[in-house]
Amino acid sequence: MSLPATMKAVVIKEPYTLVLEERPFPKLRAPTDAIIKVSTAGICGSDLHIYRGHQPGPYDYIIGHEAVGTIVQTGDAVTKWKVGDRVIVPFSTSCGKCYYCAKGYTSRCADGELFGSLKADGMQAEYARVSHADGCLFAAPADIPEKIMVLMADIVPTGYYVASNAKRLADEDRTDQLDKAGKKGGVAVVIGCGPVGLCAISSAVTMFDKVFATDIAEHRLEAAARHGAIALPADKVKAAILEATEGRGADAALEVVGHPSAIDTAVDLVRPYGVISSCGVHTHDVTVPGPSLYGKNLRFQYGRCSVQTFIPPAIEILRNNKDLFEHFIENEITFDEVIGSYKLFEKNKIGKTVIVLDGKK
Amino acid sequence: MSLPATMKAVVIKEPYTLVLEERPFPKLRAPTDAIIKVSTAGICGSDLHIYRGHQPGPYDYIIGHEAVGTIVQTGDAVTKWKVGDRVIVPFSTSCGKCYYCAKGYTSRCADGELFGSLKADGMQAEYARVSHADGCLFAAPADIPEKIMVLMADIVPTGYYVASNAKRLADEDRTDQLDKAGKKGGVAVVIGCGPVGLCAISSAVTMFDKVFATDIAEHRLEAAARHGAIALPADKVKAAILEATEGRGADAALEVVGHPSAIDTAVDLVRPYGVISSCGVHTHDVTVPGPSLYGKNLRFQYGRCSVQTFIPPAIEILRNNKDLFEHFIENEITFDEVIGSYKLFEKNKIGKTVIVLDGKK
Repeated sequence: MSLPATMKAVVIKEPYTLVLEERPFPKLRAPTDAIIKVSTAGICGSDLHIYRGHQPGPYDYIIGHEAVGTIVQTGDAVTKWKVGDRVIVPFSTSCGKCYYCAKGYTSRCADGELFGSLKADGMQAEYARVSHADGCLFAAPADIPEKIMVLMADIVPTGYYVASNAKRLADEDRTDQLDKAGKKGGVAVVIGCGPVGLCAISSAVTMFDKVFATDIAEHRLEAAARHGAIALPADKVKAAILEATEGRGADAALEVVGHPSAIDTAVDLVRPYGVISSCGVHTHDVTVPGPSLYGKNLRFQYGRCSVQTFIPPAIEILRNNKDLFEHFIENEITFDEVIGSYKLFEKNKIGKTVIVLDGKK
Repeated sequence: MSLPATMKAVVIKEPYTLVLEERPFPKLRAPTDAIIKVSTAGICGSDLHIYRGHQPGPYDYIIGHEAVGTIVQTGDAVTKWKVGDRVIVPFSTSCGKCYYCAKGYTSRCADGELFGSLKADGMQAEYARVSHADGCLFAAPADIPEKIMVLMADIVPTGYYVASNAKRLADEDRTDQLDKAGKKGGVAVVIGCGPVGLCAISSAVTMFDKVFATDIAEHRLEAAARHGAIALPADKVKAAILEATEGRGADAALEVVGHPSAIDTAVDLVRPYGVISSCGVHTHDVTVPGPSLYGKNLRFQYGRCSVQTFIPPAIEILRNNKDLFEHFIENEITFDEVIGSYKLFEKNKIGKTVIVLDGKK
């Protein structure tokens, strides 16, 4: 395969300034690296954290962390993949061998890289370098359309992760000890019904008896209902949850927004000894009233999805809901439309957007 | 038994104002109540929250929530106890039957009362009413001296609770799945080496391979070392923990202080995917930097000890460490010395103090 010397890429120069640039073809840096030709890339809500300048600089790197593609080059130590393999590229890389990876905590891999950062150029490009290719890539299943497969790079596994953390901790409360982890049970509420929220709902409905969801935007509530939640605006959700739980509150709240006010809502909606499972990217201080923490005996799990661990179960969620997730992608754009799309996305005027690269060059 | 019409009691009138008053003998209010003659009562660090006005008023109730005593009167529905039984009076009552009690979450009993509050007069009195006597009292074991038995009312079970929450959550990380909950493992750090911290250490050393402890006071570090911790001042503990964990940080931090700065320290000392187990009474907002929550995938369990659940295992900790806990009680005082002792305790000039009532009137 003849590989080009340069490629097109979306580069963040400073907050609110993206440029479609010609960049050098990526180089292998380690024998465990691979180079991917990106066929579909996604624009994610957390790209907006960077776009808006909520992450510390400096900038001048390629943005994006959701991709499906084909391997075009492999380092000498890559044994699992060969040129031509179609793969899902998870949003962060992980070695598969360190203390954290051994526990399934791949988001904290001692040698991992987050795509779309100063350390690792991102996926909104024609090609990308992937470190630890053996440890971190997944074969793209043939039965899942490319357009929705890109959701496997981040948000479907992240949705599964936040739901299963909630379930695991809430299961500690179940008195039917026998095989409780495998059984549906309890009442959850998903706070935020954007793309990750919808993914969280699709996972949560397989785990909890009832899943409520809330958001400030009416059209997001409609989507949440399609995904199986009892979707209600902020002024109605609490009363409905209390009615469903004999006045106690939700067993678990899933916080996917990454805003301190979403944590406030979670603290308010859960019962005593409730669980708050958060996958939102928190860039600011999170303040919770001490009397709630102490007086409700709250449990929290925060943090970035360990994506490699959650891709296998998340694939089943996607496979079982193909139509729903087709519907979920609102825009398919070309590379030339990316910068304009960020402007609309940042103003909340468009929903989930994927960039289709294949055959465009 | 002839019961008096009045009794001596320590009454909080307003912040920093305690009065030794003559109060009416307590009345049974429900058939499930019992009346206890207090033989030994403790002064607890959380009494200082009330003394200092950190809890909202109004006041004019009997303070205290640690006691050992003898039953002198029972309501008609009390079946488990009879007059003359010696009992440990846990710091809060619980019905033993509701949704929360059924899960072992007795601190959130739907009908529970916290002693030393407007709702339930406390234990620094000659007599006290106890609600849900069948559900909440424990027989006082004959082999444990009265002076240390009073520690079973709160701080030994609270120490066990905060340690076992840390262990339970940290066990989620263990890759040796078989029977992992019963095995010692991991590295913990106890933040705060006052009375509850020492109890937490005595429990934690039975669960974790290594237990570090830190405090600002030198004499507390000495006590922490006696209880089995590697006790170090704030400027040395982090480096020692990093050295013991290949640079990762502690698997779990036990926060027993109830001050936001102790949570800061905990967040700093744990590794990625670390556990923060808190039993401190948080009366103020707790603020944690979002990037730490997200970037370290932190887990938290906050809240008041479900004391009835943790008394049985905690008794074993006390039984196996009688000498250590004898040493731990620094002052035995009479009722007439209580108010002066609060003044010294509030200024951190005396340690754990118990009030010996038996035979004083």
